[in-house]
Amino acid sequence: MAQSKSTEIATLGEFGLIDRLTGKLGRRCDTTLMGAGDDAAVIDMGDSVMLLTTDMMTEGIDFDLSYFPLKHLGYKAVVRGVNDILAMNASPRQITVALGVSAKISVEALDELYEGMEQACKELGVDIVGGDTTASMNGLIITISAVGVARKEELVYRSGAKEHDLICITSNLGAAYMGLHLLEREKRVLKDVENPEPKFEGYEYLLERYLKPRTRQNVLAALREEGIVPTSMIDLSDGLASDLRQICRSSHCGARIYLERIPIARQTSELAEEMHIDPVIAALNGGEDHELLFTIPLDKQEQVMRLGLVDVIGHITREESGVVLVTPDGEGIALKAQAFDR
Amino acid sequence: MAQSKSTEIATLGEFGLIDRLTGKLGRRCDTTLMGAGDDAAVIDMGDSVMLLTTDMMTEGIDFDLSYFPLKHLGYKAVVRGVNDILAMNASPRQITVALGVSAKISVEALDELYEGMEQACKELGVDIVGGDTTASMNGLIITISAVGVARKEELVYRSGAKEHDLICITSNLGAAYMGLHLLEREKRVLKDVENPEPKFEGYEYLLERYLKPRTRQNVLAALREEGIVPTSMIDLSDGLASDLRQICRSSHCGARIYLERIPIARQTSELAEEMHIDPVIAALNGGEDHELLFTIPLDKQEQVMRLGLVDVIGHITREESGVVLVTPDGEGIALKAQAFDR
Repeated sequence: MAQSKSTEIATLGEFGLIDRLTGKLGRRCDTTLMGAGDDAAVIDMGDSVMLLTTDMMTEGIDFDLSYFPLKHLGYKAVVRGVNDILAMNASPRQITVALGVSAKISVEALDELYEGMEQACKELGVDIVGGDTTASMNGLIITISAVGVARKEELVYRSGAKEHDLICITSNLGAAYMGLHLLEREKRVLKDVENPEPKFEGYEYLLERYLKPRTRQNVLAALREEGIVPTSMIDLSDGLASDLRQICRSSHCGARIYLERIPIARQTSELAEEMHIDPVIAALNGGEDHELLFTIPLDKQEQVMRLGLVDVIGHITREESGVVLVTPDGEGIALKAQAFDR
Repeated sequence: MAQSKSTEIATLGEFGLIDRLTGKLGRRCDTTLMGAGDDAAVIDMGDSVMLLTTDMMTEGIDFDLSYFPLKHLGYKAVVRGVNDILAMNASPRQITVALGVSAKISVEALDELYEGMEQACKELGVDIVGGDTTASMNGLIITISAVGVARKEELVYRSGAKEHDLICITSNLGAAYMGLHLLEREKRVLKDVENPEPKFEGYEYLLERYLKPRTRQNVLAALREEGIVPTSMIDLSDGLASDLRQICRSSHCGARIYLERIPIARQTSELAEEMHIDPVIAALNGGEDHELLFTIPLDKQEQVMRLGLVDVIGHITREESGVVLVTPDGEGIALKAQAFDR
C-alpha cells in the first residue's frame, strides 16, 4: 500500500498554506465580490457592500488565562475581530461569538468575558447578534465573526498601493509584544511563589497595549473628514514586516521603510534593553499591535501629517526592488517575514 | 476578602446560560432586526434581510478523528453551519472557516477537510469567502460562520407557531445518534487489536446519517413551490425533545406529539435493540439529526402530506398544556429536554 504523504504545516511558509487551501475553491454566488485574500470578504448588496470576517483565539496560543483578565480578553477578542472590518475602511455593525468552554470555566468567568466584549462593542457601536457555546476538552476558544458595511467606492483593499505612495502607521510598534514578554517573565519568575507580586511598575503602557488594544476608528474618521482615501490598508496583527509584505504582495509592489522613522515607545525600548531583546525586532516582528498600516498618495503627505495621528515610515517602490528596511547609515536590508503562525 | 462566586455552567440548565449571557447585551445598530434567540441573526438590508450564524465544533466533543474521515468532517461542518440559515427559510450564500490546528494535523489532512467543505458548498451553492487559521494546543477546532439572504416576508422564526398548527419533521430520527454509538463501540472493542476491522455491515445508513448529514434545501424548495410557509422552524440539532421545546418556548405554546408517528429507521431500531438502548430515547434526545422541525397551519395538512417529504407527528397546543409525548395507549408524558450541551 502506498504511504500517504504527510507534510508539516510549517514547511509551507507564511502565505503557502492559505494559498493552498483557498486556491482550489470555486465561486458560485455572484454576490461574492472578494473571497479570501484580504482582511475581510466583500459581498455585494446592491448599492452597498457587506464585509465578513472571522478570527479565532485559542487558550495557550493566543492567550494565557493565568494572567489575562477575562474582561480584557473579551474586549481584545472583539477589537481583533472588528479590526479586519476597519482595515477595509468599512463600518463594523454586528458580530457573532462562538465559544468553546472547558469544564474549569465558571459562569461568572463567562459573565466577565461577555462584559469585556460588550464594552468593546459599545465603544465600537457594534451589536453582538448571536453565538454558539460548545464544550471544549482543553481550554477556552473564542471565534469572533464580524459583519460591516461600506459604500463600494469607499472600500480599501490590500491591493491598491502604487509606486511613490507613502506608508503610514497609526502608532508606535512592538509595545504589545514587550507587554506579553513582561507578563511571561513575571509568570516564570513567580511560578513557585506563594503570594506572587508581579513587578509591572513603569511598564503599564506595555501591558495595556497587549491586554487592551485600541480600536482606530478615530483615525479612519479623521482621514474621511480630510477626504484622504488610503490606497491600501491592513490590520497590523502579524508584525510590520509580515503585514507590509502582504500589502506589497497583493499590490505587486516593493517598499522602502526607514528604521529611524519607526516609532518605538520609551517603555518598549527600556524593557527590551532590560530583557536583551532588540527593540527593532519587537517593532518589526512582534505582532499584535492591532493598529492600521496603510498607504496614501504622495501629495497627501502634509495633510496626513497635520492630523497628528499617523507616522509616515517610508514609501512604495516597484516590485523588483523588494521590501527593504533602510538603516540610519543608508544600508538596505531585505525584510523577511516570520513563520506561518505566531 | 470576599470569596468570589463560582457557578458550574451545567447548573444553569439548557436555556439558562444563553439567557444569562445575552440578556444584558445592548442594541446599537438599527439594522439589527433580531439578535440571539433564533437559528440565525437577522440584519436589515433595505429590501432584503441578511442572516448571520456561527457554529463551533471541537475535537473530542463534537468529533473523534480516530474514526471521522476528515473529508466527511469538512462536509458535516458546512452542513451544520448552513442549516441554521436554512432553518430561517433563507438562502445560504457565503461562509467563513476559522480553524484551530494542532501540530499533529498535516497539510494533506487540511486538504481533505477543505475538499469535504468545498463539496458541501458546491451542493449548497455557497462560497467559502474567508477564514482564519490559528494554532491550537489541543486538537482540531472548526468554526463555520454562515451568511444568507431572504426577503423579509419569507423569514420563518422559531416564534410563530400557533395553536392547532401541525408539527412536521423531514426525516426519521435517532439514526445519527445510533451511528455515533456504533462508531464508539467499534473503537472500544478494537482498541488493542493490531489490524482492526470494524463491523459496520447492515448499519451503513446510520454511519452516513452521522458522518454525512444531508441538507434539506429540497424540502424548503418543495414547500415554497406549494406556497406553504411554515409558521415556525428550527434546525434539529439537539434532539426532537429539546428543539420542540425551543419552538414552544419562543412561540409561547405547548405541543402534543404522538409516539407511533415518530419515524424511526429499521437500522436504528435494530442497532438500538442490539445495544440495549431505547430507540425512542435515541429519536427524542439523540440529537445531530440535522433535519428540519417546523409547524404549518392545520389546513395545509393534505398538501404537505402529498409532498412525501415530511412526517406530521403532532400539533401545537396552548402553553398551559406543556410539551407532551402521547404513547400508543393514550398516556401523556411531559417531555424533558437534555442537559445544557451534548
